[in-house]
Amino acid sequence: MQPNTLDRGFPNAEFEARTKRAQALMAKDGLDGLLLMTEPEVRYFTGFQTLFWQSPTRPWFVFVPAEGKPVAVIPEIGAELMRRSWLDDVRTWSAPVPEDDGVSLLTELLMPLARAKSRLGVLKGHETLLRMPLGDWERLLAALPGLEIADATGLVQGLRMVKTPAEIEKLAHICAIGSTTFERVPEMVSLGLPFEELFRRFRREALAQGADDAPYVVGAADQGGYADCISPPSRRPLTAGDVLMLDTGCVWDGYFCDFDRNWAIGRANDSARRAYDVLWRATEAGLEAARPGNTCHDLFSAMSAVISELDDSGGDIGRLGHGLGMQLTEQPSHMAGVGTVLQENMVLTLEPSLSYGDGMMMVHEENIVVTPEGGRLLTTRAAPELPVI
Amino acid sequence: MQPNTLDRGFPNAEFEARTKRAQALMAKDGLDGLLLMTEPEVRYFTGFQTLFWQSPTRPWFVFVPAEGKPVAVIPEIGAELMRRSWLDDVRTWSAPVPEDDGVSLLTELLMPLARAKSRLGVLKGHETLLRMPLGDWERLLAALPGLEIADATGLVQGLRMVKTPAEIEKLAHICAIGSTTFERVPEMVSLGLPFEELFRRFRREALAQGADDAPYVVGAADQGGYADCISPPSRRPLTAGDVLMLDTGCVWDGYFCDFDRNWAIGRANDSARRAYDVLWRATEAGLEAARPGNTCHDLFSAMSAVISELDDSGGDIGRLGHGLGMQLTEQPSHMAGVGTVLQENMVLTLEPSLSYGDGMMMVHEENIVVTPEGGRLLTTRAAPELPVI
Repeated sequence: MQPNTLDRGFPNAEFEARTKRAQALMAKDGLDGLLLMTEPEVRYFTGFQTLFWQSPTRPWFVFVPAEGKPVAVIPEIGAELMRRSWLDDVRTWSAPVPEDDGVSLLTELLMPLARAKSRLGVLKGHETLLRMPLGDWERLLAALPGLEIADATGLVQGLRMVKTPAEIEKLAHICAIGSTTFERVPEMVSLGLPFEELFRRFRREALAQGADDAPYVVGAADQGGYADCISPPSRRPLTAGDVLMLDTGCVWDGYFCDFDRNWAIGRANDSARRAYDVLWRATEAGLEAARPGNTCHDLFSAMSAVISELDDSGGDIGRLGHGLGMQLTEQPSHMAGVGTVLQENMVLTLEPSLSYGDGMMMVHEENIVVTPEGGRLLTTRAAPELPVI
Repeated sequence: MQPNTLDRGFPNAEFEARTKRAQALMAKDGLDGLLLMTEPEVRYFTGFQTLFWQSPTRPWFVFVPAEGKPVAVIPEIGAELMRRSWLDDVRTWSAPVPEDDGVSLLTELLMPLARAKSRLGVLKGHETLLRMPLGDWERLLAALPGLEIADATGLVQGLRMVKTPAEIEKLAHICAIGSTTFERVPEMVSLGLPFEELFRRFRREALAQGADDAPYVVGAADQGGYADCISPPSRRPLTAGDVLMLDTGCVWDGYFCDFDRNWAIGRANDSARRAYDVLWRATEAGLEAARPGNTCHDLFSAMSAVISELDDSGGDIGRLGHGLGMQLTEQPSHMAGVGTVLQENMVLTLEPSLSYGDGMMMVHEENIVVTPEGGRLLTTRAAPELPVI
């Protein structure tokens, strides 16, 4: 088990600094407030952490004003926990109340902005969703004539992309837990083991190593190579000649790792070895390119230049890695044409993939921090050759 | 471990029957199609099951036409898996493409409906969310002038509320797994055990008992009673005199249990014993009232009549149970004034709670199927008196 001496949560100063950074950007963009309703955003500004988000029944809101502390508008069931945060103003209702699930509380809160014909930032862009009923959103807008809605997606994602030292500590911790879990996979595997049972062993080991949870465990195993990387577990028994891939998002204190490993069961064929080698070297190229000043496009290009030894399509998954933090996948995306400039302390996945042979695919993944010297690994680097179990 | 002989997934006939039921209701409501984009709804009509929904990057869509099979509009990364479903028409794009994440594919698909000034049902109501960027939704609507958007929340939730025999088998299986996991809690507990470590042991045991995952594990432990039931785990050591509550949503093949158990550590005080007894009897009243023809209001009233022996507020959590299935919480809600009529084969939680003493609360929870004879337990009934570990 990984040593478990890190503190959970963050000091209030962290939330204060995040809020002030947001408010400086809001001033620049002419925004008089932000209305947020998704788990990572609410947690980013308040520290409010609960699994209760898994229930779709209740919406949760945080308003970030132009200055001062955020205001929470949340179901009463979360009041006790939210009042332990750094916020002073926590407004609650006895949700669920389908006919008024926070809408009148939000209307009251936002009315001064509407009267002043102010601009309210909300998340409307890529990788966002509206975590409240669409009908309630329409009713809220109708109750606030004069309010201008602006898309604050870039602002919020831009803030969250660059991690603080305290966030990087948590990410390093969960990546270490993931790494030691993957090291145990050879002990979990036996011929004939149903694939779903391997997933179960993997999750149990991740917990034993210190993860709070392993919510994301996917993988594939098939003769000579696999064709798909997002399927749920089957009962197919592991068989000699399989190429096995496991990909996990484990979580500790609300921060994720997201990486995978590949193995050959019993024996490895040449085409799988070759694919593995190309992807391993593509990751090396990514590590070298992950420096402040380079763009996501540069990072993509560095990896795809190696991948093209075997595969010119760049795979069909559309990108070769992404941001990582409070979510399994975050901004930015390492894709052709994405001009996002890498900054020190961004935490990223490098996820080169390729198609080969007769419909096979392979994916590698590591987690890194961007530093002036290139990508610093948070994960224990995958073996340079396809390991045989 | 629970015997693991149930098949995963459903025969195609199940999806065909669900679709035909939806189409009959759509005809009644004058809907020419349904556009769905949330995980349970996509899975309900297609069987498409993947953890990939945990990544917020990609939207996924299913269109249910007035007749014929649903059409999937999904990222290419899911094509292989969706093509194994009963659907014939799977349209994909290489997501993520922030400037066009499925919007032009949806526009093409829905244009005939817009031209005919048809009505498209979407989920806009209670317990729903818009799982696509709000900006993309606005762009889609702008590209489809003439299309009338109608709220299909009641239609879809009404379908999903009543479970098929095959769904009930899966729910019974995961409830049995949850029950045997709770039975092992006394073996997991020791004085001084950090609370977060208990959560980890609980999750490991649920997996060992056969759960695919235990994504929802919350709880509380404090001297004489607890004050909050949604907090994340702390490092507080378990102490003699604590009242301990663990609440779990475990999942098997995409179906959830959701129930809790309470224990006293070392010794129980009278007020906790009393609260436990009242809640146990409130659940009995709920079991008796969970019959076809009664309403959710009736079920609420039956339980709150017992709860009021100790607490007139009915707790602040707003309801005394809810539907259960592909989600931890589903429709309906057992609340005062909710007229939803119980039907045979609804799967529900009975979740009476109360406030007592100096800011304490207690929650009980069981999972049941509605039958003409009252609630049939899927969970192993909690002990009638507060168990002391």
